[in-house]
Amino acid sequence: MKAILIIGDGMADRPIKELNYKTPLETAKKPTLNKIAKTGICGLIDPIAPGIVPGSDVATLSLLGYDATKVYAGRGALEALGFGIEVSSNDVAFRCNFGTVDKNFVVLDRRAGRIDTASATKLAQSLQKTAKKFPTAKILFKNTVQHRGILRLRGKGLSSMISSTDPAKIGQKTLQATPLNKTPEAAKTARIVNELMQLFHETLKKHPVNKEREKKGLPPANIVLCRGAGTLPNIEPLTQRYGIRAAVVAAMPLVKGVCKVAGMDLLPVKGASGTYETNFIEKAKATVKALESYDFILTHVKATDVASHDEKFTLKIKMIEKLDGMVNHIMKNINNEETLIAVTADHTTSCETGNHEADPVPVILAGPGVRTDDVKEFSERACAKGGLHRIRGMDLMPIMLNLLGKSIKFGA
Amino acid sequence: MKAILIIGDGMADRPIKELNYKTPLETAKKPTLNKIAKTGICGLIDPIAPGIVPGSDVATLSLLGYDATKVYAGRGALEALGFGIEVSSNDVAFRCNFGTVDKNFVVLDRRAGRIDTASATKLAQSLQKTAKKFPTAKILFKNTVQHRGILRLRGKGLSSMISSTDPAKIGQKTLQATPLNKTPEAAKTARIVNELMQLFHETLKKHPVNKEREKKGLPPANIVLCRGAGTLPNIEPLTQRYGIRAAVVAAMPLVKGVCKVAGMDLLPVKGASGTYETNFIEKAKATVKALESYDFILTHVKATDVASHDEKFTLKIKMIEKLDGMVNHIMKNINNEETLIAVTADHTTSCETGNHEADPVPVILAGPGVRTDDVKEFSERACAKGGLHRIRGMDLMPIMLNLLGKSIKFGA
Repeated sequence: MKAILIIGDGMADRPIKELNYKTPLETAKKPTLNKIAKTGICGLIDPIAPGIVPGSDVATLSLLGYDATKVYAGRGALEALGFGIEVSSNDVAFRCNFGTVDKNFVVLDRRAGRIDTASATKLAQSLQKTAKKFPTAKILFKNTVQHRGILRLRGKGLSSMISSTDPAKIGQKTLQATPLNKTPEAAKTARIVNELMQLFHETLKKHPVNKEREKKGLPPANIVLCRGAGTLPNIEPLTQRYGIRAAVVAAMPLVKGVCKVAGMDLLPVKGASGTYETNFIEKAKATVKALESYDFILTHVKATDVASHDEKFTLKIKMIEKLDGMVNHIMKNINNEETLIAVTADHTTSCETGNHEADPVPVILAGPGVRTDDVKEFSERACAKGGLHRIRGMDLMPIMLNLLGKSIKFGA
Repeated sequence: MKAILIIGDGMADRPIKELNYKTPLETAKKPTLNKIAKTGICGLIDPIAPGIVPGSDVATLSLLGYDATKVYAGRGALEALGFGIEVSSNDVAFRCNFGTVDKNFVVLDRRAGRIDTASATKLAQSLQKTAKKFPTAKILFKNTVQHRGILRLRGKGLSSMISSTDPAKIGQKTLQATPLNKTPEAAKTARIVNELMQLFHETLKKHPVNKEREKKGLPPANIVLCRGAGTLPNIEPLTQRYGIRAAVVAAMPLVKGVCKVAGMDLLPVKGASGTYETNFIEKAKATVKALESYDFILTHVKATDVASHDEKFTLKIKMIEKLDGMVNHIMKNINNEETLIAVTADHTTSCETGNHEADPVPVILAGPGVRTDDVKEFSERACAKGGLHRIRGMDLMPIMLNLLGKSIKFGA
């Protein structure tokens, strides 16, 4: 018995007036997901707990069976790992943006005009040279895609308990990183980040790439904004905890980072981009192929969340229908007698608010041994009537592992 | 108002192909249980938590209202109590088997050919003599039924944090007990157990009973295998906690032990054996009679679990039908206006896997004051639609006590 967990990022939603008060999931044509609902057991999941709005990182940790309220240690280290940047247990890592500020450090653009990756790479290389001279910690700065980047601090006595330098709004001044507790480690780390930001600004503002951009009327990438200070969560990998071989099919670095921490292999997929243009069928093929070597595969789709943040419900419906097609390809190419399949979302993202919301997400679970119920549709309201009732995100993995025959008994 | 809680051990199951994907409980004729479902409120119980596979000891603790994840301290002491062996707060007790090993301590039979109780008693008496000379702890060894026995260590500085000597598989060598933490207590206890096992082996291998068995071609009981090191759980008895008089009608020592720790009286029942041949009607009679003297009675049936471990669903159906008959006898002989009745299972045991599983168990609760629902059948899937929804094992007792009018208000 093997298992596949399919997560549509932000796939759940709230009723939308223009959809006659249906959700995108209720509106979408999704014959495969409905078929799984019919043959399985359904329910609702609170990713963390009722009323708690989760990020994708904590929600994914939770859906992998971890108590995110206990183990979560910030976004930075997870995202760094997802980009293939090695992170050790004493490192502190940050998610960064190249941004544009004026002379008074007022943020004009939080993404420096979504600077192209090639230009950003040149800037990052210069920053890395600058950082080499830094005395109190070993610095790694690496750009990833467009304006995005990772800053990793390595050294003794660092802490992730510091605030962001990113004001998160244009028209506001950049912030000083401040310690979030009274430890000398937090104070030291805040000082390092503030000094680095100044140093980086000096390098960036006179950089030829930015001179060129200004000539072209493009916003210069003259600041590095840091947020999400994080360390590695201290968790037992799934491989050890349950004795399973686990892998993930995903494009989103944050989710890949969570899975890496959980001891899962990251499977490369041609055309998996985390965007509307992601190749759903290649993801399906990678999932089916992974079944040969792994006991548990997480297949993650980001596009549903992107459409929600963009507040485009029609596009969200289309992405759900593509996800249904992906699941159809998977279901047609696996042995249903030997595979447990689960489909859920990591959280609700509302196409009206454009934000993550706390409403629970629907879940379907089908395969040998499952106690079926009467639910015939995969949607927020149909699954609310299912036999699983309302469980927590961290309950799903133990339930799946039990159906796989991989549980360890408590008591005698 | 008084209450009866009836527990069918391992009574819940998963859908079985040969039963047209119904469970034994769904298939069984159970007019009494269905009648209670019709007149009461139904739901699902996770004995510990969703996805957690419980043993009968932790599940029973939980159904009695205790948080087993906090109070459980191993099987040994509970089982010893269930056999009427006194256990004090510093004792460490083990569940033991007489087994058969070859010269190299490879286990040939984990039950020494299910040696008869009379022979085992002679062996145990010799072991007890041997143990009297033991210098570092006071030893009690007592056989119970057939190959089963209890070892109790008494003395200063003992710990239950040691591993089993029972490899749990034939064809493997017996194991050395090893400390599971770094305390001197665990190291000492492991040393005692290992020395005792050697001492017992010396006594057993030359024992006349075994010489006789070998002559007859029977496997000699030449080793004592120890597992489930346990101490008394530190819990407040029900009697104190809720001011009730409580008793249990059960044959299974482990369950009896749990109930004893909970301050319940163990009621002897003629013909209650914990086997397929157990006398269901005598149990019913004992339950009815106990209502005269007690506020709360737990009536436990083991046979449903035995059939599940034996992977015999037809027999399981039969045992459920006998349990229904037992409940019928109870219902006909009590005053329904003054009695709250609950029926559930302590855990799911699958007739397909032969193991305890994590799937939740159905529960029905009927009596004065109960908010009824639409459920008309006592089964896993019917009760999933009930008004109790999905609760935890440790929630049941407070719910019952509240209906009994025995709750203490929290707050003002």
